[in-house]
Amino acid sequence: MAGMSSSPASSTPFVRRHVGPSPDDQRRMLKSLGLTSLDGLMSEAMPAAIRLKGQLDLPEGLSETEFLSKARQTAAKNKLFRSFIGQGYYDCNTPSVILRNILENPSWYTAYTPYQAEISQGRMEALLNFQTMVADLTGLPIANASLLDEGTAAAEAMALCRSVNRKTKSHVFVVDQDTFPATIEVVRTRANHLGIEVRVVDVDSYDLSESPFAVYLQYPAASGRVRDLAPLIHQAQAKNSLVVVGSDLMALSLLKPPGEMGADVVVGSSQRFGVPMGFGGPHAAFMSVKEAYVRSLPGRIIGVSKDAHGNPALRLTLQTREQHIRREKATSNICTAQVLLAVMASMYAVYHGPEGVRKIARQIHLLAKTAALGLEQLGFNLSHKVFFDTLTVEVPAGKKTAILEAARKREMNFADLGGQRIGLSFDETKTFTDVDDVLSAFAGKSFTGATELGQKLSGDFGALNRSTAFLTHPTFNSYHSETEMLRYIHRLEGKDLTLANAMIPLGSCTMKLNAVTEMIPVTWPEFAGLHPLVPMEQAQGYVEMIGDLNHWLCQLTGFAGFSFQPNAGSQGEYAGLLVIRKYHESRGQAHRDICLIPRSAHGTNPASAALAGLKVVGVECDSQGNIDVKDLETKAAEHGSNLAALMVTYPSTHGVFEEDIIQICKVVHQHGGQVYMDGANFNAMVGLSRPADIGADVSHLNLHKTFCIPHGGGGPGVGPIGVASHLKNFLPGHGQQPTAGPSTGISAVSAGPWGSASILPISWAYVTMMGRQGLEEATKVAILNANYVAAKLEKFYPVVYRGKAGRVAHECILDCQSFKETSGVIVDDIAKRLMDYGFHAPTMSWPVPGTLMVEPTESESLAELDRFCEAMIQIREEIKAIEKGQMDRENNLLKNSPHSIDHLTGDEWNHPYTRQQAVYPLPWVKQHKFWTPVSRVDNAYGDRNLVCNCPSVDDYA
Amino acid sequence: MAGMSSSPASSTPFVRRHVGPSPDDQRRMLKSLGLTSLDGLMSEAMPAAIRLKGQLDLPEGLSETEFLSKARQTAAKNKLFRSFIGQGYYDCNTPSVILRNILENPSWYTAYTPYQAEISQGRMEALLNFQTMVADLTGLPIANASLLDEGTAAAEAMALCRSVNRKTKSHVFVVDQDTFPATIEVVRTRANHLGIEVRVVDVDSYDLSESPFAVYLQYPAASGRVRDLAPLIHQAQAKNSLVVVGSDLMALSLLKPPGEMGADVVVGSSQRFGVPMGFGGPHAAFMSVKEAYVRSLPGRIIGVSKDAHGNPALRLTLQTREQHIRREKATSNICTAQVLLAVMASMYAVYHGPEGVRKIARQIHLLAKTAALGLEQLGFNLSHKVFFDTLTVEVPAGKKTAILEAARKREMNFADLGGQRIGLSFDETKTFTDVDDVLSAFAGKSFTGATELGQKLSGDFGALNRSTAFLTHPTFNSYHSETEMLRYIHRLEGKDLTLANAMIPLGSCTMKLNAVTEMIPVTWPEFAGLHPLVPMEQAQGYVEMIGDLNHWLCQLTGFAGFSFQPNAGSQGEYAGLLVIRKYHESRGQAHRDICLIPRSAHGTNPASAALAGLKVVGVECDSQGNIDVKDLETKAAEHGSNLAALMVTYPSTHGVFEEDIIQICKVVHQHGGQVYMDGANFNAMVGLSRPADIGADVSHLNLHKTFCIPHGGGGPGVGPIGVASHLKNFLPGHGQQPTAGPSTGISAVSAGPWGSASILPISWAYVTMMGRQGLEEATKVAILNANYVAAKLEKFYPVVYRGKAGRVAHECILDCQSFKETSGVIVDDIAKRLMDYGFHAPTMSWPVPGTLMVEPTESESLAELDRFCEAMIQIREEIKAIEKGQMDRENNLLKNSPHSIDHLTGDEWNHPYTRQQAVYPLPWVKQHKFWTPVSRVDNAYGDRNLVCNCPSVDDYA
Repeated sequence: MAGMSSSPASSTPFVRRHVGPSPDDQRRMLKSLGLTSLDGLMSEAMPAAIRLKGQLDLPEGLSETEFLSKARQTAAKNKLFRSFIGQGYYDCNTPSVILRNILENPSWYTAYTPYQAEISQGRMEALLNFQTMVADLTGLPIANASLLDEGTAAAEAMALCRSVNRKTKSHVFVVDQDTFPATIEVVRTRANHLGIEVRVVDVDSYDLSESPFAVYLQYPAASGRVRDLAPLIHQAQAKNSLVVVGSDLMALSLLKPPGEMGADVVVGSSQRFGVPMGFGGPHAAFMSVKEAYVRSLPGRIIGVSKDAHGNPALRLTLQTREQHIRREKATSNICTAQVLLAVMASMYAVYHGPEGVRKIARQIHLLAKTAALGLEQLGFNLSHKVFFDTLTVEVPAGKKTAILEAARKREMNFADLGGQRIGLSFDETKTFTDVDDVLSAFAGKSFTGATELGQKLSGDFGALNRSTAFLTHPTFNSYHSETEMLRYIHRLEGKDLTLANAMIPLGSCTMKLNAVTEMIPVTWPEFAGLHPLVPMEQAQGYVEMIGDLNHWLCQLTGFAGFSFQPNAGSQGEYAGLLVIRKYHESRGQAHRDICLIPRSAHGTNPASAALAGLKVVGVECDSQGNIDVKDLETKAAEHGSNLAALMVTYPSTHGVFEEDIIQICKVVHQHGGQVYMDGANFNAMVGLSRPADIGADVSHLNLHKTFCIPHGGGGPGVGPIGVASHLKNFLPGHGQQPTAGPSTGISAVSAGPWGSASILPISWAYVTMMGRQGLEEATKVAILNANYVAAKLEKFYPVVYRGKAGRVAHECILDCQSFKETSGVIVDDIAKRLMDYGFHAPTMSWPVPGTLMVEPTESESLAELDRFCEAMIQIREEIKAIEKGQMDRENNLLKNSPHSIDHLTGDEWNHPYTRQQAVYPLPWVKQHKFWTPVSRVDNAYGDRNLVCNCPSVDDYA
Repeated sequence: MAGMSSSPASSTPFVRRHVGPSPDDQRRMLKSLGLTSLDGLMSEAMPAAIRLKGQLDLPEGLSETEFLSKARQTAAKNKLFRSFIGQGYYDCNTPSVILRNILENPSWYTAYTPYQAEISQGRMEALLNFQTMVADLTGLPIANASLLDEGTAAAEAMALCRSVNRKTKSHVFVVDQDTFPATIEVVRTRANHLGIEVRVVDVDSYDLSESPFAVYLQYPAASGRVRDLAPLIHQAQAKNSLVVVGSDLMALSLLKPPGEMGADVVVGSSQRFGVPMGFGGPHAAFMSVKEAYVRSLPGRIIGVSKDAHGNPALRLTLQTREQHIRREKATSNICTAQVLLAVMASMYAVYHGPEGVRKIARQIHLLAKTAALGLEQLGFNLSHKVFFDTLTVEVPAGKKTAILEAARKREMNFADLGGQRIGLSFDETKTFTDVDDVLSAFAGKSFTGATELGQKLSGDFGALNRSTAFLTHPTFNSYHSETEMLRYIHRLEGKDLTLANAMIPLGSCTMKLNAVTEMIPVTWPEFAGLHPLVPMEQAQGYVEMIGDLNHWLCQLTGFAGFSFQPNAGSQGEYAGLLVIRKYHESRGQAHRDICLIPRSAHGTNPASAALAGLKVVGVECDSQGNIDVKDLETKAAEHGSNLAALMVTYPSTHGVFEEDIIQICKVVHQHGGQVYMDGANFNAMVGLSRPADIGADVSHLNLHKTFCIPHGGGGPGVGPIGVASHLKNFLPGHGQQPTAGPSTGISAVSAGPWGSASILPISWAYVTMMGRQGLEEATKVAILNANYVAAKLEKFYPVVYRGKAGRVAHECILDCQSFKETSGVIVDDIAKRLMDYGFHAPTMSWPVPGTLMVEPTESESLAELDRFCEAMIQIREEIKAIEKGQMDRENNLLKNSPHSIDHLTGDEWNHPYTRQQAVYPLPWVKQHKFWTPVSRVDNAYGDRNLVCNCPSVDDYA
């Protein structure tokens, strides 16, 4: 609060708030492991060969107050001009009730991906609303929730079309030239290694008779032009092409939707539905499709199913088609979505309702029309006469610079469209005063008649007027007062278990503290309000912040440079592999296309490799889960001159530091390959060991795992890639923001030049406040916590993988396979029973079937670890009772779990155990109880009966 | 988010977010009342004679975005200098986890006073922590939670001492001169009409043998001096005097506490425990006492009791001694406490723990010591050598102004103590760099040696070192990581029903929307960070904001001026009566001391009158709850020349607009009296009727009822008083901030010059965004909502008071008395049963025993009103089942309510109804269920077994 003063040196260091166990607790825990110091543990857990030598150039930790003071200074270096740039990013008003109660509320932002459906009903309802909203507005029946950005959504649509279009073998993807440049660039990047030829053309003069597999149109177009696409769509479809339309939800509240014109796929961004521009992200992109394509739809889809007692319940549907099953046959590598932002956008629609959205759209259109009229009166020509919010103004030769300068003097940014064209996009934050200012900049003198001009205009699109209703579900028509909205948000929130309730010990997910102080700057206008294409002199706060982060991550990894463009871990993998390919190309070795991937790898690895045009060759693992070096040597030699890369996760997906890693990297290098090190488990290395020192050439880091960006219920993620110096020139660039990457690099992988820029302050804050020593302690305690849990539970659940000294790294895998035979209990039953104890399950059956992978992170206290272990031990007792025949094999505490609140308060109770045993199996559960809103969700039913939009109220009742 | 741009005119007006029923809903509701327009309803509900004629000078409503933009501009006019002023206000760091999750969290700030114990266990646990913290730190066994500010706490202590000290009849209250000036001023104000003589003396040279009833000492003293008070205390007590010590919780973590020196009462402010200075408030003051005085302790006290099933449960204890029972015999009129701030302060202690608090205190002390050493080296004399955080520096004649100026140039404020003395107080936000700057200001040149100086020092108070432990309870020793703290806050939050869950239809309490946009500026440093005694040129943002508010409230009430100093409704009453007395005095009529108060008045009315030295004469009410005008005329005539005032609530506490109000005011004026109109029900008048037009001379408004300041769980409140022009010169002043009131006015009633200044932006935002028309609509819909509920429920519960046309005002009273005979059901049973339906009870048995008073406010939607009415109707059915003998008179749904979650999930169920009947009595309850954490709380047990501190963990288990 006290913005100005810095804290005294002796104020509680942030590391003591971030790390769960106090120094006393750490000593106690070490003692229980037979150790006396963290360093003693480290020397057992981490091979000496990979340990960092020397000291990193990292700052000393600042206190929270000091950080906030520094952050305010940095933020002030970003200049908040009014944006008329458009191109997929529009200023908007985040309703305060959504800002405070969702974006700034840990009960929403600390949630995990809703894999455990029973404790994720709240955010899944919000995501179902998102799907309904997208389906309604685009005019197509099925939508997902959600994709990473408009550019990658377009790329995903391209891949989908190639996959589902059986009518033509063409590999040509036609993109109308009147499409956002960032979309075109990302599509081109993606097409590059998929054997797809992208042709950017003027569709009006292009001959579609050669049957490209799909055509991409934008509506409204990049220039702002609005026209009836139906004739083009029908023409293309007649030639066996599919049609993808990039669109804008706000415009579609007034305009006939692409679905009604026959489009097969619609994509776009929901950013302007209340999500700040944030210098490019994160925002939720969307995709809607015809019913026929639902099973090819990439990304998360929420479906309606029922629970064990027949009550309606939501779940992630069609999960079997995810890349962790399809692996290298996947057509998409998307994993993390943009859940938090999709939730916000859906809530914007809930709060405004159809009438409210239409009213906002009408006002935006009116402003654009007013500006158009004014510009015409001033003698300017417009490139097109029918538009929603965006004008393309043709200016006389030599005048453009002066106009852009005049705009900047008035703290406005226009879009420089090249040539003699200026783009102007209007949004809900703009007024007639802004139109006056715009016209003044064009006129070169003060103009004040906009209000008067505007009053004479009406907004009619004639045949393109939207005639169909949308957002008709009661959810979009009930919560228009702030009180009702607050309570709706609050009701949903109460259904979800998040870090605000309990530990979420998900192996490989690193659900650590997302500190409030880290979150605070994210919603400051100076970070939230910037358009990604502003002139860089207006973004010096970002430049400084990203510069710091780049330097620190280089220090921590040993790499020479980072790109922050990839906005998810999977995008990082993909971008990293492209960098490797580009490197090989630069050396005349474009033919290298073999990617070695251990069998234990996360499914996104092979999927990303496939998207990068690499052929995946599996490498075996030994009984300890380590890479079989022999097999690696064989495979590397076998593919010799074609070897492009090895993808390896370190420490391994089995949660151990493989001793052979250095040797493994050497082998790959010997054969001319590059080592891609997946940074999913980097939380076990920060400050103690560096990928580059070990031999990695590229890594992505998951800032949402290791560097405190919250999971948001399943996104946003940030997956920057770091590279060794020989790869630095190949990092991603961005056609519209040249400083975002080297000009010699791969083209853009994300629409935003710096990806999800507005959440980078979270990681920046984390490093700033932890400092070198704090980061080291965090890593050590993460490893301590995992080993403490492993030691406490090994008598009850075999710990299946360990390092040479018998220690695990930052997570441990508990074997539950034997229970199936002895008691009929499977790992899912344990996961669900944990909910009755108030916990989120660990990672289930990955990377090893029938196991639970526990990653406590450093942020969990000794008390919480003990509670978790006690719960696991008690569950083992419950299993024993079945094994001994004291409890029925079907009707028991585990099979019936989670015991929903309805079940518990129901009048019937046909179980051979009491309600109290179900509800309070241990005394402390009473204080930590999470009341599960539904019983176990029926997955099979949900996949058989696909309902992906809000069901009618009758269905619910 | 988009800080810069203002919203288009057509964006959703704030009134549509604030008012629950949409225009369509309003039409539907009016129709059900047989009406076609709001104005039609108004003409029936509100007597024409009191209706406003003409239009008020109020702004047009701004959108939320426009308001935030304006607020940022206003806030920027406050200048944030570093404060060394002290005097009871110290800069501090609000831990971010507390800031976001309590102060900015509607689940905490929208809660009501915890009268309904079963749904208030969370904040009561936090308040019990507060009591334990205060008791521990002050060294006395019993503390309350909480008082309004340090000055009024001292005044309350004075009254308590006079009340409990039976050993002397003295009316002398001795106050040591080394006490904060604001404390002395408020004590003097309070003493004035209580027949108490305040003697401000140098206690060291004062002869205590005359046995004053009490002595007030400050420790550390205002000058910063620290010394052993034990000899003085013993000396005073030997002469039958009681001893009150004003103290500082932070200092007491290092210093021997006053309780251990023998003090009878300790008071002070908990502000520096993480609560922003806020230009003077709100903050929670405290009072702790010896065990013998517990039943005289003013303010709220939380006690440990048990619920119907024997589980521990918290409750407000000793409620029978509240002023609404004692009325004019009360020695205190305190009603609202400072719950939200007490919760924050207690959480600060929970988060830091005893070691953390001590560490902060040591650092503060070290900085003060360093500054002292530096000042001595610079040749300055200090008034005292033993201090905690505050130095009094004696400067050479003629140098003071230059030093203060030099400080301001470095953006620092020192305290000008008069004469040649400067005060310097250090706090947890300061560093050695700040000490350097301080010394530079004194030296007149740059000084940089503080760090070096400080390293040589140690902080030892010798015999005054604290030797006893404090904050030893596990609660203060478990939640030191942010994750643990977040979860603790979250667990407590989950136990409380607030406006985030459901309607809180409390008659006379106006639990309306507290919009997020209204709350946002409160925590901006520019409003939160100001010391109340800064030079006014640094507070121009406040000046502008308070100026606006003053003008608007004058417009809305018809008064000539307002004072914002009273920081609760009861303080407003008290201040208003003092203004009236001062007015009479000014006309030579100091003898006027009769205050007429209708029998139906709120208990604070007679209590405030008593504190103002007025004799209360009751006025009868007729069967409709209206003032019996005949009786009033008789009483007024009877007391004729001694008549000071009438206190009247309008609309009446019975929720109707009395037709005779104008006549009533005339009668009082005819006899030379003044009319004090209690503004508790002003929500029924805003924009439609004005107290001054009706005849009121003074009113207080409850900004926490009518103007959207949240109730905070039982405070803060803000009770500004408005007065007619003939009283304007008598409004409260403030000795240290002359612009806070007229120099001719009464002396300060609160420690802060503008009371709870930092929450005034909430009301300012409300008026700014609603505008004239919005405010009018709010009032009309408040009345519509009440009449809708009355009409819907009258067939089931007689509505006992109405106006002439059969309409109620903004609330309605439902008669439940008959049920006792027919079914044994009392009003409490209905209130508790409502919890099972997910609602907070209406006001119980006030102002009429055996009734429920329902005030829906304008913010509740039609859907919510319908749900509430359906619940009430269903409860009536449940009562009927008892009446008909279908349900047992003791073992039934009402008597057993609320059905706690433990009871519902218990294995035993010995009731003649099902769990489902208990838990989901209507279908929609499932979607709106609030799970009550405890069963009905046993009040009698709690009063018999008084436990007001955290019970040991064993007791809980």
